Amino acid sequence: MNAPQPTPRFRPDDATVTAITAELQKRFGDRVVTNLAVRRQHGHTLTWIENQPPDVVVYPQTTAEVSEMVRLCAAHGMPLIPFGAGTSLEGHVNAPYGGVSVDTSRMKRIIAVHAEDLDCVAEPGVTRKELNEHLRDLGLFFPIDPGADVSLAAMAGTPASCTNAVRYGTMKDNVLALTVVLPNGDVIRTARRAKKSSAGYDLTRLFIGSEGTLGVITEITLKLHGIPEAVSAGVCPFPSIRAACEAVIVTIQSAITVARIEFLDEMQVRASNLYSKLSLPETPTLFLEFHGSDANVREQAERFGEIAVEYGGGPFEWATKAEDRTRLWQARHDAYWSAFTLRPGAKITATDVCVPISRLAECVEETRRDIDASGLVAAIVGHVGDGNFHVSLLVDTDDAGEVARTEAFIGRLVERALAMEGTCTGEHGVGQKKMKYLEAEHGPEALDLMRALKRAVDPHNIMNPGKIVAL
Amino acid sequence: MNAPQPTPRFRPDDATVTAITAELQKRFGDRVVTNLAVRRQHGHTLTWIENQPPDVVVYPQTTAEVSEMVRLCAAHGMPLIPFGAGTSLEGHVNAPYGGVSVDTSRMKRIIAVHAEDLDCVAEPGVTRKELNEHLRDLGLFFPIDPGADVSLAAMAGTPASCTNAVRYGTMKDNVLALTVVLPNGDVIRTARRAKKSSAGYDLTRLFIGSEGTLGVITEITLKLHGIPEAVSAGVCPFPSIRAACEAVIVTIQSAITVARIEFLDEMQVRASNLYSKLSLPETPTLFLEFHGSDANVREQAERFGEIAVEYGGGPFEWATKAEDRTRLWQARHDAYWSAFTLRPGAKITATDVCVPISRLAECVEETRRDIDASGLVAAIVGHVGDGNFHVSLLVDTDDAGEVARTEAFIGRLVERALAMEGTCTGEHGVGQKKMKYLEAEHGPEALDLMRALKRAVDPHNIMNPGKIVAL
Repeated sequence: MNAPQPTPRFRPDDATVTAITAELQKRFGDRVVTNLAVRRQHGHTLTWIENQPPDVVVYPQTTAEVSEMVRLCAAHGMPLIPFGAGTSLEGHVNAPYGGVSVDTSRMKRIIAVHAEDLDCVAEPGVTRKELNEHLRDLGLFFPIDPGADVSLAAMAGTPASCTNAVRYGTMKDNVLALTVVLPNGDVIRTARRAKKSSAGYDLTRLFIGSEGTLGVITEITLKLHGIPEAVSAGVCPFPSIRAACEAVIVTIQSAITVARIEFLDEMQVRASNLYSKLSLPETPTLFLEFHGSDANVREQAERFGEIAVEYGGGPFEWATKAEDRTRLWQARHDAYWSAFTLRPGAKITATDVCVPISRLAECVEETRRDIDASGLVAAIVGHVGDGNFHVSLLVDTDDAGEVARTEAFIGRLVERALAMEGTCTGEHGVGQKKMKYLEAEHGPEALDLMRALKRAVDPHNIMNPGKIVAL
Repeated sequence: MNAPQPTPRFRPDDATVTAITAELQKRFGDRVVTNLAVRRQHGHTLTWIENQPPDVVVYPQTTAEVSEMVRLCAAHGMPLIPFGAGTSLEGHVNAPYGGVSVDTSRMKRIIAVHAEDLDCVAEPGVTRKELNEHLRDLGLFFPIDPGADVSLAAMAGTPASCTNAVRYGTMKDNVLALTVVLPNGDVIRTARRAKKSSAGYDLTRLFIGSEGTLGVITEITLKLHGIPEAVSAGVCPFPSIRAACEAVIVTIQSAITVARIEFLDEMQVRASNLYSKLSLPETPTLFLEFHGSDANVREQAERFGEIAVEYGGGPFEWATKAEDRTRLWQARHDAYWSAFTLRPGAKITATDVCVPISRLAECVEETRRDIDASGLVAAIVGHVGDGNFHVSLLVDTDDAGEVARTEAFIGRLVERALAMEGTCTGEHGVGQKKMKYLEAEHGPEALDLMRALKRAVDPHNIMNPGKIVAL
């Protein structure tokens, strides 16, 4: 790529910050906040990364307001950091060069639900739970469910996926269109509401997963699904990591359309037992869910049961009652929080990788051995139907040696995934922490291409600078 | 976007063409062809667009060879036009500025099939039929099926979708990764083989649907599916376009997982009866296919049958025998060719639009009325589960008045689709013929962004110039 070098990124001087803050206050009044607690909260990530607060936080309410603040900042080279619900795990919302945190949490309108078309249009501050509550009476739901009650904007930015992805895909598959404020303040809509299009470059996908580095998402058009006639869930213990993973591979190959198939290693089961008051045997375990008609769900579950037995698993226990199902999935969603029970007082750092499913057993087993050999405390959970798993590490951050061992472990985990044709992150995103692995994953030429894209869209490097390609 | 202006595109002078041709011949011998018949065949599209042949056709066999020829051309500003199987419908492979047609039809290796991971890696010249023949013994298949036996490269370039998309998605959903030769000759791989990744910008999707304007695709990693245990297909006549479309909407909403749900209007049924020796009642008709377990397929088909009756459709007739099924879908795939029977001697121009499914009945009805009122001869077929339909117009191209009326009709069709939040093309792509509609569809700012992307990836505008954003 022969594009010009990017504008070097620097922190705007105090006078500029003061002037822009005053401008913003004149225009947006008390929706402009400068107190340190709020600013620190906007540099917050669910991890151990050092907090780098923005200079100012603004709460826009409309696309036009976002455009206005972007134009103001662009004119003075002031960084902008789009902010959703603060559930980032890799330092996406830190402000290493200061700037304005654009908190879209007050953009909460569900603009339209098109039941016949199975889609809806919502503002970025709507959370997935709010959306699903709104949809329930219409018999519809939005399947992407990253555990935490994150905002749709953050889900599109990362791109999120999580437990239902094995059946319904990730945000990459479920966003039809976006309204985006570009770094020059222009407002675009990336696509129409038609389910398919081949009318030019795929702008929707350009922004999904761009982590706020290319623009601010201000409206999202999502695909919806009919609430399935029947939902059933169950738990199945296995004698080993490998047995559980092999059962997953055969299940996927058999075209059994599991809606969720989640792996918990022994440590995670222990944590979930403690935190969520379950009483599961402490052994590698799968949580499953099936969606469909009554007959179909039964048939699929029976076929899975047979596969589990073949790999030494079982008994496969059904949670037939809705409240048991809820309890089960709540426990899965609380995996992040439950990990703290393994080492009270420690800080957590959660990381994820994704490998082709044929390499999953090997990758998880090696990772477990690596954790144990490194003397670290960690639980493994995974969206194993996609080959994606997470390691939640409990770390005493006051112990520099342990921090160093943890960093080294994460490096080896990524290296292991890459050696298996996998990726350094399946769904957490790059943020600040995974930038250093991108060249090994993509090669220098592809990384140059990413830089060229960033420069083309954001030539003055004002959108969430210091992330992904780190211009 | 403030990116610099593109290099103005011009046809290279004769001396340059001669020198580059000589260089290519020295390197690639008789795989460099300059005779007019072959060159014209490489400017060929299945449409009435004027043929604009390239200066020279080259048949590379490896990624490294493609890289070498791209570097050579780049050094002299010589255009390159990636060529697959020549099935373009909108003038994608025309060479308005001359240049080198890069014909990847001899890159035919299926490099790897990973049955456990349900993916494979293939070269771009492999056609979908060749791929499926290779996969059959493994119990796997690749579902995207655009009727014609097109190359995988062309399918990724467009992006193709067609009959199975309602269940399996389009190429956008089924390509895991690409190897691409960039306009500077660099070779990149857009992603790893993991099923999910959030490691940076989505380079895969950047190239899918880019119609050869950003690089040459030289390897494709595709998602595969297990061949379903049971497949059943059937035909269902309806009293009106609206009744058929309403039945489709309810079917999709009911989460009946049809694998194919295809609409043929009265004229298309007549054409298919004539061409494919069927004896269907000449009325709006749906062709359907269900994939699943025996029990599941039966259950879905029964549920569809009930819906059809509600909308006055039926009888819903099953093609239980494999040969009847094949005959049915062959007839559907031959729709393009069958249309000629409606007006022997005429030329065909096929166009497509896609609208939200709630607007489908209205859009197809208005379009049918418009065809009739314009005194044109045309058949309508559609992948109606996605709101996507095609009009095959039979035109006497010697009649300037009729040509003008046809062009005007296409303009109204696009306008109608856009007014219904649809797109000017669901799957045929932009090529030369739909460029003029992109601004109305996307707005000037989004189109500027597309131009900025093109400039960033191809600053000297050598890749398939004069297409999509027309730099």
